[in-house]
Amino acid sequence: MSTFAAAPALEVEQWFNTREALQLDALRGKVVVIEAFQMLCPGCVSHGIPQAQRIHDIFSREDVVLLGLHTVFEHHEAMTPVSLAAFLHEYKVTFPVGVDRAGAAGMPCTMSAYALQGTPSMVLVDARGQLRKQWFGTAPDLVVGAEIMRLISERPLQTAAS
Amino acid sequence: MSTFAAAPALEVEQWFNTREALQLDALRGKVVVIEAFQMLCPGCVSHGIPQAQRIHDIFSREDVVLLGLHTVFEHHEAMTPVSLAAFLHEYKVTFPVGVDRAGAAGMPCTMSAYALQGTPSMVLVDARGQLRKQWFGTAPDLVVGAEIMRLISERPLQTAAS
Amino acid sequence: MSTFAAAPALEVEQWFNTREALQLDALRGKVVVIEAFQMLCPGCVSHGIPQAQRIHDIFSREDVVLLGLHTVFEHHEAMTPVSLAAFLHEYKVTFPVGVDRAGAAGMPCTMSAYALQGTPSMVLVDARGQLRKQWFGTAPDLVVGAEIMRLISERPLQTAAS
Amino acid sequence: MSTFAAAPALEVEQWFNTREALQLDALRGKVVVIEAFQMLCPGCVSHGIPQAQRIHDIFSREDVVLLGLHTVFEHHEAMTPVSLAAFLHEYKVTFPVGVDRAGAAGMPCTMSAYALQGTPSMVLVDARGQLRKQWFGTAPDLVVGAEIMRLISERPLQTAAS
Repeated sequence: MSTFAAAPALEVEQWFNTREALQLDALRGKVVVIEAFQMLCPGCVSHGIPQAQRIHDIFSREDVVLLGLHTVFEHHEAMTPVSLAAFLHEYKVTFPVGVDRAGAAGMPCTMSAYALQGTPSMVLVDARGQLRKQWFGTAPDLVVGAEIMRLISERPLQTAAS
Repeated sequence: MSTFAAAPALEVEQWFNTREALQLDALRGKVVVIEAFQMLCPGCVSHGIPQAQRIHDIFSREDVVLLGLHTVFEHHEAMTPVSLAAFLHEYKVTFPVGVDRAGAAGMPCTMSAYALQGTPSMVLVDARGQLRKQWFGTAPDLVVGAEIMRLISERPLQTAAS
Repeated sequence: MSTFAAAPALEVEQWFNTREALQLDALRGKVVVIEAFQMLCPGCVSHGIPQAQRIHDIFSREDVVLLGLHTVFEHHEAMTPVSLAAFLHEYKVTFPVGVDRAGAAGMPCTMSAYALQGTPSMVLVDARGQLRKQWFGTAPDLVVGAEIMRLISERPLQTAAS
Repeated sequence: MSTFAAAPALEVEQWFNTREALQLDALRGKVVVIEAFQMLCPGCVSHGIPQAQRIHDIFSREDVVLLGLHTVFEHHEAMTPVSLAAFLHEYKVTFPVGVDRAGAAGMPCTMSAYALQGTPSMVLVDARGQLRKQWFGTAPDLVVGAEIMRLISERPLQTAAS
């Protein structure tokens, strides 16, 4: 059986749309989908965020947790948390969104830890907390739906095996 | 474990885009996706057939076989095989398409056997030939991709069990 | 002032969506928009015909007459009037549509007279019956709306001058 | 002949995409299209701003001047000029955009003078500086193209008359 690296921990400064801070460790047993975006990135607004919202709306919260990650690596002063709050309200984003912690050279910490190439990016973490898939840009819904279900379907076996 | 009914056999008068007639029995071990359509049905042209083509293009032929089924239940004289041939050519449909056999009261035989409500409809048959899912209209790609992968993921177990 | 050629007469075998045969001569005083299409032409179905229907729906019949022209130059046996009738019904096309008369070498007569390059094509005829604009493919709605209004706006002057 | 009210002057704090401040008075002889938007208004981003950009791209600058107006009436702290600058850059907006001057009760001055209902809104000003058309939401391109051309077509007469 293949071995996969553990998904890096999320480094988040502030959360929206959730009462409590979220962390991958606490989500073992569920498939975690991370949507990395910037609020002023047109591809995120047109494609990435709507796809993330669809995933959040369609899959059971028992199986899949969708987390947004605001990974600001350009125009920092234009995409502050106060602007993000208005954006999430106006665009009716209802999934939890964390602000990625500012890091060296303007690159946010979680984005660096995952070596994301840009926004939008999507990351799949399996029920054991392993990094399984990463897309830069927006993969087709058919592919994303299939890959999420692949990880959901593995779960009973992994639970039994662990 | 759940028990599912066997998917009814296809009753096809003529095939396009395949050298040989296809039958579900001969496709055991693969997930079969059936797209029932009419060439003059706007929802089929806009949504159902493009989704079927995406499935045909994205999934491995080792895992998934996509079959079109031309289930003409209205305007029979307007959607003859000669018109269908031109349609498939112009719309660049590359998956195999069978013409559902004319039945009683203008309702084609396979459409009746599956009790399809109209077009477009999509049917999923698992690797054991069991009827697993049926949608009237077009389900979201995320859902269809997930349901196909659910059936793909079951296969090793079923093979082992059978 | 520019001089424009007279628009060739329509040669139509059969009309749909109108009680009486239509002819350009009888439409003097109105701007005439001709949408040349084939029912199995994907670009016509996705873009040309919906644009024609929007023109028919938006402009006043006092100002603008939209005429569809079924210019079959390929797959003749697949796009007969009986198939066209079903197509117009299913696609909810409500503007008048004429079947272009079969001509030499499978090319329909009106299509030849206008030297259309293919389908979809749109032709604008001014209130004096002059050929003013011809597009192969689908021009942007902003452009088409502007060009139609240019011809509408000329009318009072032309009427006065004639 | 109808008489129309003069379009209120623009009250702009800061301009983008233009070297010099713009004012309606100085644009006599041209049709002016004003697109009032907010950068975090989804309908503006999806429909209003792309339509404005199409107008800017398609019509001759000799005939039509397209002006954006950032009319922030909510989430003021989220849509400051520094955020707007990043937005215009990321969305490749190339037409001139003015920031509507802050007014009483958070409602910007020009927006109040035109009594705009919300964003997006579009305003047409004719070549004599008269207010001719106002849409809340996004009117169809066919209609907008036609109404712009109606005002373009009037010009020679008005010029002659003035």
